[in-house]
Amino acid sequence: MVDIATRVWNHKWKIDPIVRSLIDTDFYKLLMCQSVFRNRPDTHVTFSLINRSDNVPLARLIDEGELREQLDHIRSLSLTRGESTWLRGNTFYGKRQMFRPDFMGWFEGLRLPPYHLERVGDQYELTFEGAWPEVMLWEIPALAVLMELRGRAVLNRMGRFELQVLYARAMTKLWEKVERLRTESGIRIADFGTRRRHSFLWQDWCVQAMLEGLGSSFVGTSNCLIAKNRDLEAIGTNAHELPMVYAALAQDDAELARAPYDVLADWQDEHSGNLRIILPDTYGTEGFLARAPDWLAGWTGIRIDSGDPVAGAETAIRWWQERGEDPKTKLVIFSDGLDEDRILQLYRQFAGRVRVSFGWGTLLTNDFRGLVDGDRLAPFSLVCKAIAADGRPTVKLSDNPNKAMGPVDEIARYKQVFGVGAQTAIDIEV
Amino acid sequence: MVDIATRVWNHKWKIDPIVRSLIDTDFYKLLMCQSVFRNRPDTHVTFSLINRSDNVPLARLIDEGELREQLDHIRSLSLTRGESTWLRGNTFYGKRQMFRPDFMGWFEGLRLPPYHLERVGDQYELTFEGAWPEVMLWEIPALAVLMELRGRAVLNRMGRFELQVLYARAMTKLWEKVERLRTESGIRIADFGTRRRHSFLWQDWCVQAMLEGLGSSFVGTSNCLIAKNRDLEAIGTNAHELPMVYAALAQDDAELARAPYDVLADWQDEHSGNLRIILPDTYGTEGFLARAPDWLAGWTGIRIDSGDPVAGAETAIRWWQERGEDPKTKLVIFSDGLDEDRILQLYRQFAGRVRVSFGWGTLLTNDFRGLVDGDRLAPFSLVCKAIAADGRPTVKLSDNPNKAMGPVDEIARYKQVFGVGAQTAIDIEV
Repeated sequence: MVDIATRVWNHKWKIDPIVRSLIDTDFYKLLMCQSVFRNRPDTHVTFSLINRSDNVPLARLIDEGELREQLDHIRSLSLTRGESTWLRGNTFYGKRQMFRPDFMGWFEGLRLPPYHLERVGDQYELTFEGAWPEVMLWEIPALAVLMELRGRAVLNRMGRFELQVLYARAMTKLWEKVERLRTESGIRIADFGTRRRHSFLWQDWCVQAMLEGLGSSFVGTSNCLIAKNRDLEAIGTNAHELPMVYAALAQDDAELARAPYDVLADWQDEHSGNLRIILPDTYGTEGFLARAPDWLAGWTGIRIDSGDPVAGAETAIRWWQERGEDPKTKLVIFSDGLDEDRILQLYRQFAGRVRVSFGWGTLLTNDFRGLVDGDRLAPFSLVCKAIAADGRPTVKLSDNPNKAMGPVDEIARYKQVFGVGAQTAIDIEV
Repeated sequence: MVDIATRVWNHKWKIDPIVRSLIDTDFYKLLMCQSVFRNRPDTHVTFSLINRSDNVPLARLIDEGELREQLDHIRSLSLTRGESTWLRGNTFYGKRQMFRPDFMGWFEGLRLPPYHLERVGDQYELTFEGAWPEVMLWEIPALAVLMELRGRAVLNRMGRFELQVLYARAMTKLWEKVERLRTESGIRIADFGTRRRHSFLWQDWCVQAMLEGLGSSFVGTSNCLIAKNRDLEAIGTNAHELPMVYAALAQDDAELARAPYDVLADWQDEHSGNLRIILPDTYGTEGFLARAPDWLAGWTGIRIDSGDPVAGAETAIRWWQERGEDPKTKLVIFSDGLDEDRILQLYRQFAGRVRVSFGWGTLLTNDFRGLVDGDRLAPFSLVCKAIAADGRPTVKLSDNPNKAMGPVDEIARYKQVFGVGAQTAIDIEV
């Protein structure tokens, strides 16, 4: 029987909204937002879309009107009562009331601030400006909208069964990865694929397939909406955004050198246990760890998000040993450019020496490589970053010079302050 | 929104019936049934299930109770008004009122006769006895039920996403065949896959995928219900059953030698054009054509259903030339053990020399080879044949001794009467 009401309801949508909820975002964004809301609420920031893949001419692929409709729709969203209840009442990382009442009150009243959109050649210039806690929440939905609209531009020209076969192929591809990953029963993997997912529905499918296929090896998803809908753990801690903005706000080189640790001192005030994860690579992992205060060695683990992951983990292990910590009790989370081969290789190399976990992103939720002619659905490297704070440019170095960003003279200054020497360049695929 | 009524309705089914319509059968069965109803309505026949694949222990895989429920459900079916209207009112092969009012009147009152089911070792003995026009209609649904129940036995132990990936893989597999086949725009292919399909829903999917993927190269389906639901051409002419029963009824060797031509004389009275297709291999193609009356050379085409298809087509071409016919105007239909490689190879070899068409069966609607461990979903060679008529055994020789059937002494007698010498054995896969 056709459900007439559903059909009529579906036809009432003027657009097919890509992001339909303010919690269709990464959990760490909300944790960081609360931290920023407490510690630096008045910072004025600019976020900007950066397409690292010049070969993907976004402005030729995506209609500006459609893009505006999607972004406008996101600005119409506010937290629903159920979403708010879930955030207020749920246990995250074993902790009740992770989100404080003052933050929740603010979040419940929030609508996302305006955006600025302009076509420049074959790319879009998309920026967001305003108070840090508000602007930062644009990052994930903006990326998701651009990735999905680019996909839709390709899908729109396909037949019904051709489409079904496309998804059949993508499902098969993911399932083959799952089948390989479950040969290692001790493995622990979370979905980190919201920002560059093929689409919301596809991410939701991937999460459920991981759940069935990997069982307890699948530890949760970074996506709050999917975590809520599917009754899963919401996963995530913090990102480069915090040290980048803290660093930009530094008044002199001494304050700059201290900024990455100030961030973590603020974090330690708020969080314990598995939320105490160091992200050491913003201005070079080696120097960051060498100069780190001892209390950081007591943290639960480290996240390796750029550079050679083996080298990064070995550096962390050596550092813990030097500081008198037992690496076996420490957590190493790999989250950079993972696919199943890399996951298995890293797991086999480090299991037993440290506790190993994986945040699997783009190649979990957007591996459409090789599935259409000209590879027009392959994921590409799109980011949305804080580029300025209170009028000063931000800088990121990372352990891979291809991921560095910021004005040239500022990069040079940061390299000097943080003692970053020669680095090995690694191609960025996704 | 959940459609509550649909959900409640679905839960009311005591079983999930595999065959839900008397026209969920091959079109040629109905054409032959009408012919039998006119010419030999009182013949008493026995049909029997024959599993040529000893390695598939049907009685261990399929619960006898479930099998009985499915067969009983088929006995509860009768022609619906819409089905009857479609058969009476539709144009088949360009002809209106293909099915005569007297036949339709009989068919509208029909319920399938009882079956006899017994477990013998790891196999089922399943036979049907009674008036030929009634019993013959058991063949296709009985085969479809057994194939699908065997599949369900495997599927029942699979998870939800594992199942979805299984079908994703099967869809991908079929689509890759479609993509290869559509490189030849002149190709003509029909679905002949009802009897050994994976399931009804899967056959329905395959037909729709062929329609989208092949466009006008897909000429229709042998399945009447799918043809009706999807507004496609119903395809099919006649089968071995007719000459086998006519031959069994022959009183002496002279009548036996004439029987295959008597069948076609009756057929010629009823049908013209593309329905005049010779199936020459029941008792050996070479001898059949050599002794054929000249009027048969005037028929539209020939169907090659056993033996080496290249040799069969070359034999037909030579025969038409000897009888003064132009092979370019003749239709050759290949229908034995086809897959896309074989189809493309035969098409490239014979296109231009004759009109070429394909009846693609098991490897269209049931190619689950390699998709589960132990290949427990691979198709196998199950048939349901007339084994006796008015108390006399039937015999089939075909152009492949592996497809021969009947009592040994009768096979010897038939070989002598029809002058069949040495034959090349070809493995039967499906």
